[in-house]
Amino acid sequence: MTTPIQPIEILRVGAEQSERLPDLLVTEEPLEIRVGHGPEADREQFSLSVTMRTPGNDEALCIGFLFTEAVINSMDQVLSVKYCEDLGRTEGMENLMRVELKPDVEISDEQFKRNFYTTSSCGVCGKASIDSIKVDCAPLKPMGVKLDKTVLFALPDKLREAQQVFKHTGGLHASALFTTGGELLIYQEDVGRHNALDKLIGMRLLEGKNNFEQLILMLSGRISFELVQKALRAGISIIAAVGAPSSLAVNLAKEFGMTLIGFLKADRFNVYSGREELL
Amino acid sequence: MTTPIQPIEILRVGAEQSERLPDLLVTEEPLEIRVGHGPEADREQFSLSVTMRTPGNDEALCIGFLFTEAVINSMDQVLSVKYCEDLGRTEGMENLMRVELKPDVEISDEQFKRNFYTTSSCGVCGKASIDSIKVDCAPLKPMGVKLDKTVLFALPDKLREAQQVFKHTGGLHASALFTTGGELLIYQEDVGRHNALDKLIGMRLLEGKNNFEQLILMLSGRISFELVQKALRAGISIIAAVGAPSSLAVNLAKEFGMTLIGFLKADRFNVYSGREELL
Repeated sequence: MTTPIQPIEILRVGAEQSERLPDLLVTEEPLEIRVGHGPEADREQFSLSVTMRTPGNDEALCIGFLFTEAVINSMDQVLSVKYCEDLGRTEGMENLMRVELKPDVEISDEQFKRNFYTTSSCGVCGKASIDSIKVDCAPLKPMGVKLDKTVLFALPDKLREAQQVFKHTGGLHASALFTTGGELLIYQEDVGRHNALDKLIGMRLLEGKNNFEQLILMLSGRISFELVQKALRAGISIIAAVGAPSSLAVNLAKEFGMTLIGFLKADRFNVYSGREELL
Repeated sequence: MTTPIQPIEILRVGAEQSERLPDLLVTEEPLEIRVGHGPEADREQFSLSVTMRTPGNDEALCIGFLFTEAVINSMDQVLSVKYCEDLGRTEGMENLMRVELKPDVEISDEQFKRNFYTTSSCGVCGKASIDSIKVDCAPLKPMGVKLDKTVLFALPDKLREAQQVFKHTGGLHASALFTTGGELLIYQEDVGRHNALDKLIGMRLLEGKNNFEQLILMLSGRISFELVQKALRAGISIIAAVGAPSSLAVNLAKEFGMTLIGFLKADRFNVYSGREELL
């Protein structure tokens, strides 16, 4: 198994002198996700995606990706998730995973084209993108609880405490799910921020939990359209981030009733959408 | 024309009080790139890519993307780059561009599948990815000049001075080309870091310049495999970045003889590959 961190010798150049030092790099490797209808069915399969990711929790990444891209709607539609290596195929080693789906889940080139056309950052203009997402995502229900700002102020520190790989390499995006009381539930890091979110959502689905309501999604970086879209698919109603949101991220959040918080620090934050959810 | 910055009213929540404030967001909008064989030729065209980008320099983005993804090898193969709007087509507005290529440039689904299979972060393992890139990229020639560390120390400040949109929104990735003497040649910002680099390379190609040797590519963030790959296509032999590189980025740089510098600050930096190019 490839590890999420790799050792390297670097040359550190300073103003006065230079020295050779051991250092650590975050691992980036491609993962190809294939889907099929069970190993006993015909061998037909579709290569759905190749993403550059940090190895680790690859099952969660596959499940999260299929779910946030609207290929599956729940774990009930999944038979198994395995490395092709484990399936006795030697071609792919550990960077190739195959997800077996129940026979009633449609898998075809056309289906995937439609999926990726309607859900992933496509369409001719931002308005069309937002319209197309409405097909797959329901508007969020009001949370029923109010957010306490002191809970939010504490989240960046809690995220940093959890960031083990980042500490060593400085090379990762982090995603975490917190309760509205500020308790950390799941945490994931990846070289790709969309992967970190897919792993997070996939892990919770693998735990048998479908419910993402009344949870806060905390992000280490900026908030893009794609991340809001993936969070919406899961029914997450609050995103809080260390960085800034984009215009389309804010428009999408407003359209669906999501609370969007940016530039979150220990004593302040900006609310871009959904201020009525705050105390 | 959509502007790169959009105004918004936010609620700034502090420990003591909250206030409504005007603020600015970085614009994120999809851009669809289509290619064809000239408006007089048949109407056949291929939708090559949809990317979420910050509007501005879209012609450069298209040209840079086609070049770094090995669809074209030079501007000689390009007849025109226009918004579909300007071509009298009403369907797409300003988020749809069409690039007309000379008849000898092969455009077919199979060609594009091959292109994207071999050049963009594909293949079953990192080794296969690197091997496949060798088809499209030549090993870099030694620069012939040595890099002065004091020139490098000054680059982060120069980059920050140029970052106009980031100053206002905090939401952008920046790419810049500097001479080895530290003079800024071109600068681009985008919500996507691969777009910022494609715009940069596309702008230089649109200026009629094919030569990227003896230039320093400076990045505001981290160094991924994809960015090294795009830089290699252009023949850029030095990347310096504010952030960390990934494992595959370093492996690729070593394989092709590229100098890779990370964590660049005013008084120090780390060299991950190509230390012999330094004074």
